[in-house]
Amino acid sequence: MPKKAVVLLSGGIDSATCLYLAKSKGFAPRCLIFDYAQRHIREIESAEKIARKARCRYLVCKIGFPWKGSSLLDRRLEIPKRSKGIPSTYVPARNIVFLSFALSYAEAIKARAIFIGANARDFSNYPDCRPDFYRAFKKVAKVGIKSKGIQLFTPLINKTKAEIIKLGQSLGVPYELSWSCYRGGKRACGECSSCRFRAKGFREAGLEDPLL
Amino acid sequence: MPKKAVVLLSGGIDSATCLYLAKSKGFAPRCLIFDYAQRHIREIESAEKIARKARCRYLVCKIGFPWKGSSLLDRRLEIPKRSKGIPSTYVPARNIVFLSFALSYAEAIKARAIFIGANARDFSNYPDCRPDFYRAFKKVAKVGIKSKGIQLFTPLINKTKAEIIKLGQSLGVPYELSWSCYRGGKRACGECSSCRFRAKGFREAGLEDPLL
Repeated sequence: MPKKAVVLLSGGIDSATCLYLAKSKGFAPRCLIFDYAQRHIREIESAEKIARKARCRYLVCKIGFPWKGSSLLDRRLEIPKRSKGIPSTYVPARNIVFLSFALSYAEAIKARAIFIGANARDFSNYPDCRPDFYRAFKKVAKVGIKSKGIQLFTPLINKTKAEIIKLGQSLGVPYELSWSCYRGGKRACGECSSCRFRAKGFREAGLEDPLL
Repeated sequence: MPKKAVVLLSGGIDSATCLYLAKSKGFAPRCLIFDYAQRHIREIESAEKIARKARCRYLVCKIGFPWKGSSLLDRRLEIPKRSKGIPSTYVPARNIVFLSFALSYAEAIKARAIFIGANARDFSNYPDCRPDFYRAFKKVAKVGIKSKGIQLFTPLINKTKAEIIKLGQSLGVPYELSWSCYRGGKRACGECSSCRFRAKGFREAGLEDPLL
């Protein structure tokens, strides 16, 4: 029987690649998708489509960050085109919250691993995407729950977006189903940082973005 | 201006004492109460009453653990009277999830501290109540968010229930508003582990439980 692994799935390039990578390593992924009142549900729909395409079970977990404090949660705030330092799209402690739920889920279903597609190369400098943070969270996963030995994998942490896309292509990731844009329009805006990292990745990988 | 502190409030003895302790240290507490589909809402009502009595603002954050896996979440399971090891009332990663939200909230409102009334003496051996876990989570709080210097306080971690109750009495904690029983009856059952720790605490403190 393949070992169960909880895979955090956002609908973007990185988490989709992470899902296919977990599958290729022989795990039976259980996708965890968050509906956290983000600006648009398009990324949730993308995540669901990707999970179905990969023939993996998924769960949409509805949570809230009632205190807002991010342009990704608060529609009154503008999504920045460019910004110095950590942009306003940063959601306080988002990945910490997501990983905590993943840990709870993993323990409840007796999964042996958690996969998160965090990436500290072509990224917005979010603190909860850096290796330091994952090292610290691994310790929490080790001492803070009843089960022993649930492993936390961050296989994309040191890869560039181009490397991730090339890896994903070799694994057959359906990037045409993914969604990266912070805005939820019919087409990707091409201007937000998430669109720009995606475009740069496909360009550097020498590949066409199937969404365009 | 007093510094803001997020205080996790469950409606029980420990968190109520923690709230009054934070106040006595000069913090302006913002209480964070979780509605996580626990077996009964009596503890949420207690938490709200305690926050109002302390004249502190509070927020009820609704989340779910859709995977169950605990007798505190799943009404089909019995609440055990006594159990060896970690009892079935253990909710996978519960305090990790709660602290993650507290961290997000603290960062969003620019609080300088988080207080949690975790206790590793008269307790059910839950892993997320042990000092080890809090040491690990402090590191997460240090490296995983944008803000620097949000401190995590666990002032009751090494106290017995009797010491906590005596401290609370000196601070004027309204224990008559608190609720500890895992069952949500009109009166505390007196049999579950939470009731037994509470009774032992009052007995050893030489005080009467105002709830009885």
